[in-house]
Amino acid sequence: MADVAARKRTRGGGGAARRAERTSVQVETAKYIERRIPNFEILDDAALAMIEDHAEQVLEEIGVSFVNNPAALDRWRAAGASVDGDRVRLPRGLARELIKTAPAQFTQHARNPERSVEIGGKNLVLAPVYGPPFVRDLDGGRRYATIEDFRKFVKLGQMSKWLHHSGGTVCEPTDVPVNKRHLDMLLAHMTLSDKPFMGSVTEPSRAQDSVDMCKILFGEEFATNNTVMTSLININSPLTFDDVMMGALEVYSANMQACIVSPFIVGGAMAPVSVAGTLVQVLAEVLAGVAYTQLVRPGAPVIMGAFVTSIDMNSGAPTFGTPEASQITYGAGQLARRLNLPFRSAGSFCGSKLPDAQAAYETANSLNMGLLSGVNFMLHACGWLEGGLVSSFEKFVMDADQLGTLHKMAEGVTVDEDTLAMDAIREVGPGGHYLGCAHTQANFKTAFWRSDLLDYKPYETWSEEGARDTVALASARVQKLIDTYQQPPLDPAIHAALNAYVAEKKASMPDAFA
Amino acid sequence: MADVAARKRTRGGGGAARRAERTSVQVETAKYIERRIPNFEILDDAALAMIEDHAEQVLEEIGVSFVNNPAALDRWRAAGASVDGDRVRLPRGLARELIKTAPAQFTQHARNPERSVEIGGKNLVLAPVYGPPFVRDLDGGRRYATIEDFRKFVKLGQMSKWLHHSGGTVCEPTDVPVNKRHLDMLLAHMTLSDKPFMGSVTEPSRAQDSVDMCKILFGEEFATNNTVMTSLININSPLTFDDVMMGALEVYSANMQACIVSPFIVGGAMAPVSVAGTLVQVLAEVLAGVAYTQLVRPGAPVIMGAFVTSIDMNSGAPTFGTPEASQITYGAGQLARRLNLPFRSAGSFCGSKLPDAQAAYETANSLNMGLLSGVNFMLHACGWLEGGLVSSFEKFVMDADQLGTLHKMAEGVTVDEDTLAMDAIREVGPGGHYLGCAHTQANFKTAFWRSDLLDYKPYETWSEEGARDTVALASARVQKLIDTYQQPPLDPAIHAALNAYVAEKKASMPDAFA
Repeated sequence: MADVAARKRTRGGGGAARRAERTSVQVETAKYIERRIPNFEILDDAALAMIEDHAEQVLEEIGVSFVNNPAALDRWRAAGASVDGDRVRLPRGLARELIKTAPAQFTQHARNPERSVEIGGKNLVLAPVYGPPFVRDLDGGRRYATIEDFRKFVKLGQMSKWLHHSGGTVCEPTDVPVNKRHLDMLLAHMTLSDKPFMGSVTEPSRAQDSVDMCKILFGEEFATNNTVMTSLININSPLTFDDVMMGALEVYSANMQACIVSPFIVGGAMAPVSVAGTLVQVLAEVLAGVAYTQLVRPGAPVIMGAFVTSIDMNSGAPTFGTPEASQITYGAGQLARRLNLPFRSAGSFCGSKLPDAQAAYETANSLNMGLLSGVNFMLHACGWLEGGLVSSFEKFVMDADQLGTLHKMAEGVTVDEDTLAMDAIREVGPGGHYLGCAHTQANFKTAFWRSDLLDYKPYETWSEEGARDTVALASARVQKLIDTYQQPPLDPAIHAALNAYVAEKKASMPDAFA
Repeated sequence: MADVAARKRTRGGGGAARRAERTSVQVETAKYIERRIPNFEILDDAALAMIEDHAEQVLEEIGVSFVNNPAALDRWRAAGASVDGDRVRLPRGLARELIKTAPAQFTQHARNPERSVEIGGKNLVLAPVYGPPFVRDLDGGRRYATIEDFRKFVKLGQMSKWLHHSGGTVCEPTDVPVNKRHLDMLLAHMTLSDKPFMGSVTEPSRAQDSVDMCKILFGEEFATNNTVMTSLININSPLTFDDVMMGALEVYSANMQACIVSPFIVGGAMAPVSVAGTLVQVLAEVLAGVAYTQLVRPGAPVIMGAFVTSIDMNSGAPTFGTPEASQITYGAGQLARRLNLPFRSAGSFCGSKLPDAQAAYETANSLNMGLLSGVNFMLHACGWLEGGLVSSFEKFVMDADQLGTLHKMAEGVTVDEDTLAMDAIREVGPGGHYLGCAHTQANFKTAFWRSDLLDYKPYETWSEEGARDTVALASARVQKLIDTYQQPPLDPAIHAALNAYVAEKKASMPDAFA
């Protein structure tokens, strides 16, 4: 009890969240998904073993580059790797040995304890789109993103029932100087949402700002001893670890904050044109990157990532929701489980310029695959458009609604005397109907997943109401969510301290726009 | 060789198809899918055994109704069932024993032998939408379907690379009298397409017309000794087999033509509101229906069907692409495999009124599930709109394009020294790119599935070309396919005989419109 009370004192949102529960509209957030269904295993053990063997060969013979990073080279040398220039070659088995200290599962704490997530195991945590410089909505079309757009997305995330995580760069606020925007972004996540969030990775100093602001939000002791951020560390595939990303990784790992170590693959460009070859490279990169987190701090939480698209060999454009990306992700999930690491992949990926049928086909292909491939952390789970150049307000709520289907699917099928429903079949008999029978009356409210967005109306009603398509319905839903948005309560002293930190940091630097 | 020659002589399309190959534009059709990936198994053996046990209990204790069908009741009595009024109760194990004579896999022959399909095993055969009274396209909106619409869909099916089957009632030609339209529909499939097709089921006499026309098309001997049609026999769920559908089934089974014995389930209305209860009822219905085909003629080819939607408990509307439908289909696939029967389910299902994002999400959910659930025959694989009330021209080509992703996904992942691509990884090294390397050059043409429809262009090009959404692209593709459509050659004597059969039959009856 003493521990619980102490923990409550040190965290900004706990008491506030409980007060919120007692007042007005309840904003509902589903618990992260705990799968009660198997994973889809596309590769057999022999194929997996061949891929693992070849990945070791890549590390041993070709190696990886740690660019502009003498400290990293020192760490590798000390661990027994061979270092030649910035090339690091790992003796067979070294990476695999080093990653044993990485946890198979970890808790990322939210300031509202009810929103904390367990990353790993059979769980699936859903986070929104990350990175686009543009936004699009039905009224305003496509335009550069601003910090106001950013805040609006954070609010939509807070209001989205099936989204467990507030994410990170939900769009790139291009109206704020490059060297200061991380402060505004963090402030938005910390104050407009009580879901877990991601830290900045664009400079080691910005990662440090993220850590320091978390110490204000969660209390210094809590943030020092717990994981309160999960941040995205991309690998410059093929086989290259740049100093900026590694600098951020070093800050986070040293502070026990989670990193997603994620090859960034456009198949045919950054990796071989074959699924198996891509898996070899992905695994080699992940082994090196995850091992490096453990060199920085053994036990640091880390996720095996795999961002995978293929390339359209006609236009050179990346393509999304394709069968090859699915095959790679299924295989990568199997490799992650054999490494006993949490796995990040899939998302609301699409190449379409509009939130139209193409966008939805491609997105649904990826979301379904993400569920069945055993993904533990799905970044970009909603709102992605145009190959990641655009965050779409309408698609955000469209995808976020579809995430509900993953929750229901993951529950699996309960087979017991109640669900087998012999009494109902007996009661209804040949030629009857089940609408009024006792079993239906007892179960209909929870039996079927129901969209909060899509059109289920009779044709005539739908026509009279304006024959709206999904984007029109989504546009109305965006407005409704924003209109009913409630800011989750936060201790005013903490809020003031965060504001002061941001103001002071901003004042300490000139504006930079590149 | 004598057999082959004889067969060629008796079939309308063989020689003609070969002639077509030698002339002008080649219309490409992919081979039916042969899966090299596992199925997704959502239920464990204990759950499956419980469902099977309860299905037997339903058949034994509650039974099924064969309505207005004294001959069926006689057959059941002779087989050892207990008959009380129109209620047939089957002793435990009887149905399971009877269905042992049903083939696990069968060939449905097309008049062009290259288009024949193998139904069962690890195969997946894709057929278009079936049944809608309305059509929709971008220019004309929603309207009652005509025989000209019907013919246009058959032409689109013929031109669709990833569609293996011409289907049946691709739309309901409401401008032709009810009692004559089956003749025009069959004539269209037989003359405008050389893919396999379905027969009429709306009256036993129309099933007989279908058989008789096939004897003209394929030759009497060939059509008598081979399966040349697969037709859809719906069960009036719950547990009722009406005389019209059974009359058609009796004609087809007696003639060794394939039936899909298919419970028609709107969960919560025609079956229990639970997944497990629905599976119990589906299995009981299929066991009785498939057993009945074997009473009519042991060895008759038959497919276990499961048409499954759930109901929106707010509006009463059926809903599509939902997680419950997926769970039921995954389970039904497992039950079908344990019965050693081909399995029909899934499709381009959606509730949306327009071919928009809702339609695409719901459709993709169902198509992906259909591939992984082991479906062998997928009716409605393209073109379905508005809960099956509408056949959409644009959605037909949109879905048909997506079917390509299933083909590629089903190929699985080849892991060997070539695909592991060590030479490429070595050649490129850290920081390089794979676009020009030898492995990419050797493989890029076949490495990645590519849409024939979706937009992969740069934003600027797409904008300049009119910023078209998927429906606009699809509308253009419909027109292109129709403009380049080539009628597959058919022996003029056979064509004339088919025309004469249709004319004579039409002249023999007054028009009926209900």
